[in-house]
Amino acid sequence: MSTDPIPTPSSPPPDVLRCAAMELVVTDLAASRHFYVDVLGLVVTEEDDTCVYLRTFEEFIHHNLVLRQGPVAAAAAFSYRVRSPADLDRAVAFYRELGCRVERRADGFVRGVGDSVRVQDPLGFPYEFFHDVEHVERLAWRYDLHPPGVLVRLDHFNQVTPDVPRAVRYMEDLGFRVTEDIQDAAGTTYAAWMRRKPTVHDTAMTGGNGPRLHHIAFATHEKHNVLAICDLLGALRMSDRIERGPGRHGVSNAFYLYLRDPDGHRVEIYTQDYYTGDPDNPVVTWDVHDNQRRDWWGNPVVPSWYTEASLVLDLDGNPQPVLERTDTSELEVTIGADGFSYTREGDAPDALPSWKQGEYKLGHQL
Amino acid sequence: MSTDPIPTPSSPPPDVLRCAAMELVVTDLAASRHFYVDVLGLVVTEEDDTCVYLRTFEEFIHHNLVLRQGPVAAAAAFSYRVRSPADLDRAVAFYRELGCRVERRADGFVRGVGDSVRVQDPLGFPYEFFHDVEHVERLAWRYDLHPPGVLVRLDHFNQVTPDVPRAVRYMEDLGFRVTEDIQDAAGTTYAAWMRRKPTVHDTAMTGGNGPRLHHIAFATHEKHNVLAICDLLGALRMSDRIERGPGRHGVSNAFYLYLRDPDGHRVEIYTQDYYTGDPDNPVVTWDVHDNQRRDWWGNPVVPSWYTEASLVLDLDGNPQPVLERTDTSELEVTIGADGFSYTREGDAPDALPSWKQGEYKLGHQL
Amino acid sequence: MSTDPIPTPSSPPPDVLRCAAMELVVTDLAASRHFYVDVLGLVVTEEDDTCVYLRTFEEFIHHNLVLRQGPVAAAAAFSYRVRSPADLDRAVAFYRELGCRVERRADGFVRGVGDSVRVQDPLGFPYEFFHDVEHVERLAWRYDLHPPGVLVRLDHFNQVTPDVPRAVRYMEDLGFRVTEDIQDAAGTTYAAWMRRKPTVHDTAMTGGNGPRLHHIAFATHEKHNVLAICDLLGALRMSDRIERGPGRHGVSNAFYLYLRDPDGHRVEIYTQDYYTGDPDNPVVTWDVHDNQRRDWWGNPVVPSWYTEASLVLDLDGNPQPVLERTDTSELEVTIGADGFSYTREGDAPDALPSWKQGEYKLGHQL
Amino acid sequence: MSTDPIPTPSSPPPDVLRCAAMELVVTDLAASRHFYVDVLGLVVTEEDDTCVYLRTFEEFIHHNLVLRQGPVAAAAAFSYRVRSPADLDRAVAFYRELGCRVERRADGFVRGVGDSVRVQDPLGFPYEFFHDVEHVERLAWRYDLHPPGVLVRLDHFNQVTPDVPRAVRYMEDLGFRVTEDIQDAAGTTYAAWMRRKPTVHDTAMTGGNGPRLHHIAFATHEKHNVLAICDLLGALRMSDRIERGPGRHGVSNAFYLYLRDPDGHRVEIYTQDYYTGDPDNPVVTWDVHDNQRRDWWGNPVVPSWYTEASLVLDLDGNPQPVLERTDTSELEVTIGADGFSYTREGDAPDALPSWKQGEYKLGHQL
Repeated sequence: MSTDPIPTPSSPPPDVLRCAAMELVVTDLAASRHFYVDVLGLVVTEEDDTCVYLRTFEEFIHHNLVLRQGPVAAAAAFSYRVRSPADLDRAVAFYRELGCRVERRADGFVRGVGDSVRVQDPLGFPYEFFHDVEHVERLAWRYDLHPPGVLVRLDHFNQVTPDVPRAVRYMEDLGFRVTEDIQDAAGTTYAAWMRRKPTVHDTAMTGGNGPRLHHIAFATHEKHNVLAICDLLGALRMSDRIERGPGRHGVSNAFYLYLRDPDGHRVEIYTQDYYTGDPDNPVVTWDVHDNQRRDWWGNPVVPSWYTEASLVLDLDGNPQPVLERTDTSELEVTIGADGFSYTREGDAPDALPSWKQGEYKLGHQL
Repeated sequence: MSTDPIPTPSSPPPDVLRCAAMELVVTDLAASRHFYVDVLGLVVTEEDDTCVYLRTFEEFIHHNLVLRQGPVAAAAAFSYRVRSPADLDRAVAFYRELGCRVERRADGFVRGVGDSVRVQDPLGFPYEFFHDVEHVERLAWRYDLHPPGVLVRLDHFNQVTPDVPRAVRYMEDLGFRVTEDIQDAAGTTYAAWMRRKPTVHDTAMTGGNGPRLHHIAFATHEKHNVLAICDLLGALRMSDRIERGPGRHGVSNAFYLYLRDPDGHRVEIYTQDYYTGDPDNPVVTWDVHDNQRRDWWGNPVVPSWYTEASLVLDLDGNPQPVLERTDTSELEVTIGADGFSYTREGDAPDALPSWKQGEYKLGHQL
Repeated sequence: MSTDPIPTPSSPPPDVLRCAAMELVVTDLAASRHFYVDVLGLVVTEEDDTCVYLRTFEEFIHHNLVLRQGPVAAAAAFSYRVRSPADLDRAVAFYRELGCRVERRADGFVRGVGDSVRVQDPLGFPYEFFHDVEHVERLAWRYDLHPPGVLVRLDHFNQVTPDVPRAVRYMEDLGFRVTEDIQDAAGTTYAAWMRRKPTVHDTAMTGGNGPRLHHIAFATHEKHNVLAICDLLGALRMSDRIERGPGRHGVSNAFYLYLRDPDGHRVEIYTQDYYTGDPDNPVVTWDVHDNQRRDWWGNPVVPSWYTEASLVLDLDGNPQPVLERTDTSELEVTIGADGFSYTREGDAPDALPSWKQGEYKLGHQL
Repeated sequence: MSTDPIPTPSSPPPDVLRCAAMELVVTDLAASRHFYVDVLGLVVTEEDDTCVYLRTFEEFIHHNLVLRQGPVAAAAAFSYRVRSPADLDRAVAFYRELGCRVERRADGFVRGVGDSVRVQDPLGFPYEFFHDVEHVERLAWRYDLHPPGVLVRLDHFNQVTPDVPRAVRYMEDLGFRVTEDIQDAAGTTYAAWMRRKPTVHDTAMTGGNGPRLHHIAFATHEKHNVLAICDLLGALRMSDRIERGPGRHGVSNAFYLYLRDPDGHRVEIYTQDYYTGDPDNPVVTWDVHDNQRRDWWGNPVVPSWYTEASLVLDLDGNPQPVLERTDTSELEVTIGADGFSYTREGDAPDALPSWKQGEYKLGHQL
């Protein structure tokens, strides 16, 4: 239980539709543009010397990814679309009541977006809310432009924060619902997935030193689209951009791949989770020692996936200080020196076959 | 424009979450059970001598298809789940104000479902609303049970009604939003797709003699899952169950297949439409003469797909009389004797190559 | 039984490795280049004002398709690769003994190919044999160049000839083996598939007015690659290039799509037949009335697929006269006015459901 | 260069069609039957108390896998089908000239197979040759029996032997051709792939302590079929049967997955290599330090994959002694303590990013 809970505001939260865009600060705009446009195939809506505005093939709003040249690689804004202009007023009141710094710009903070609210939220993340946005062509039917690994939607964010239950309570106040989480028998929560749109998540809270951005995820339609990106990276001799996967998640049941962009920002390619839109949608809780929770096929998670993440900026553009997680670490309890993972509940700690034991002990080398 | 518009009630509509279940009357329960369970692979939640309750592999509510033995093949209930129990009161008030017959049963009309409202709606369809429902295992992770053509969700209904704009206005009053439609230059609307959950539709209104059920649709994840059902039907020497497809829709951009069950009820297998949850989601209007509107690959629609549909029942279980469409028919203006379809806007009426001309003139034989 | 059998030469036949290349005469080289390169994605090995040399992504020989500008659309050469240079001598002797016109050019008839033999074979087709060929990069690993519908191999030819058994006997003398055929109870053979490489065919003989080229087929790896080509044609508003399919063949068990190029030459996209390399590989014989023989899903064949085909040239470049088939026609006995197709053996002639009856009677309109 | 070359017999080798069957000794027949039949879905042709005869869905010969109960897990026969009965005489003469022990049984060594020759080959492997075999139903069209991860063919064997060039020369004498290999700048060969049928291999020689069976491989049609097996193993809580993958090979360009059966026998699931049937098919040589050679996506090979393999039996059924490899080990030079792998030729030894470095140094823990 959190000793420092975030109070529930009396003001109603804004009605968030969905995670809608990420603004990333990149240190070499040309290199990042190459990665996201020439390799991953995102569509350039517009660009200038310092910014590239990108979108996926089924998006009709101006962009869902902004790359901005800057001195330190970081996440500058986790941007959510709200149902109506009035929700911006609600966002202002909600965060002011929480004592957060709030900034509103009628002309928006980036191109293509109108009236916007940016806040430094109680967890230290730069959250943005907007409704007004420029419409652009939805390229869903433009198969003449689709690459083999066509990315169709921004699916979710994933945030690293030291105290997951504290973060979850705040997000529930903001109107999000938990769909799945990872816990242990002692009640420690290692991660939680939360949604507004009826998928498994719009964002997830991953326990660790934070506030940091763990990753953003783009959706594609079929598993072969994900594999096509791997094959392409091999052909380009960029396979070292692959950090983890491809694989099937236990949590979310989705098929996944994790990449690292030229600044180390992590990008997931994701497909085929399930509908979660009913208010009584069953929450799925996974045991942290279940080695199929993060990869349904039991492939271990590479340690960097647990330890590395992107800085986030405050509203002045300075990196937020990173606070250490005090709860036990998922890496340590699973693939660390004293960690333990099982394939079948009740298995002995040494039950993993030879080909898995080495992999699951990899973490202790760090 | 409709000469007989349905008035907008002053009572607020119920908050509909999604199309949730269909109750079909079938004339040979064993034959229908074989089709839906042994061939299509739906999961039996429970059954007795007169009813089989079925669900898809990602569903957590008791069922999304009920097969009930009866004397006349028909659709007995188009069932929507609402957000809260209070929405049932809203449904009662909304439809009473419309002068509709309304029936409410605290114990529900079928097993697994609690307090429910059934109405005979202004278009003559038996609509049902419920919130309380028994939870069952979501079989998303049970790959040991998944067949090659695994059906994961009930995606939508499709209803035949003589006057599409009239139907759309009523559905908008009920809280639905149009995502796509088919029109002609004269302003006739041939069909419209409407949604509550953020997909292309929870139901569609297809112009024709009605009220009738055009089809129900189950979603699968990948295109090869759809093809696996075709291959299976071939192996079982049941390929004559395939009415149309597989193909890619223009409308919705989804991949599809239409089957006919032993009573002739039409079932669509459907995958990969797009997110529509923003309030300003762009509506896509298709020209009725665009031969890619219903099949993106330009394959013509078999006439039976336009003309045949299932009866619907009133609340006493009697088939509703079928009223004739008075507007022009999509079949007649496209594949009929005087019809015209083009691949490219501006093409001459005889521009179709030899291998397409015969197909597009098929309709006039009926 | 053929009344005019082709004698078996005493000379041994050349050792044919595989169907290796097709030379097509096209009447608008720019339009054809657009179709094969910009749409289908074939790779240009080299080109000049009158010829384009193309290859698939897994081919290592100079080309497997030549487009040559000419006055009349036709097939100029069905080109087979033989195991060794000595096989060219065997080809010369084999065809001379058959009384065929034979032409040999040490420098080849097209770029990239050395010593070659061209013959006007006993059926009237321009067959070519070669061994020496320029090697080029096999682009199998060049995923950076692969389009979504990547074509990897030339899989087979398909030839129209009036007397199928006569053609088969000659091809067996040439070293080919039958893998599948279509017959009726009276012993008429409507088509036969024959192979050298261990797939279902390197070429097939389709009964009809000939000699004509029915189609060439390119292989892709997965079914979604075939569907990607359909989607692309829709996006380019070229869906009228689709003549038949996509579908699953009964014969060969392969997944298919038939396109028509700007001159009407038919191109099949093909994937996933089976290994046939054992000498006792079981021959599969299909009943001509089985409506799953040509489409496993029971979708009828469009009449043009039976009646239209490309002219073939003699060695002087003049179109060969077309002789009429005298045996019964597959179109007439299946989808024609008096035709009959069944889904299940023993079904009554009128057993097809309403949605299939119209389709199967389409042929009688011709 | 081998100091102990195997002489080339003056007798011609048998004409081998393809790798056709493997006989595995298993220590718990029920457990193995469960794995291969209930999990992997192979078809039982026949069985008794001590043997199970299995086949894939496109096979027409009696079996391509025999499971035989025995005291020590081992490979009892690598069985090749030859073109004609006379090839058995050739096999006898060929191996007698090599001084090998040869045994011939007119009634075969296993059910379903007639006249057969078994030899203890110069490398210590139990090779079998046969032609006569019982035909059974080819289940290619039986989609009603196909599981999601349908296995269609036995694709290849993979053998561990200390001296790869020595093994290759012998296999070339037996009529095999090299399609790809792995070498280093010093000329050491670490592995070689060799074929009779025109795929990348019927067997491969992997450098290591031998003679041992590295794995057998079954082919499936599409990548999603391979992934379906992973998903199934997760659902059955048998994911620890997955040793390596899924992934894309560099060598062969095929998509792969490695499993371990209940005795630790390794089974590969494999799809989509390329045609190799031309005599001048280009040999592809990979640098042992190229970290995309064994996984095109740069995922490192788990050490057990290099070090563990199955014993092979002599003709009396006793395990063959295992000889140590004296050449450098692929594990040591790539993922071992002093190993080095690069993504791009010319990269510095420490050029791998953080998320890859740990993985590539995993081997030194052994």
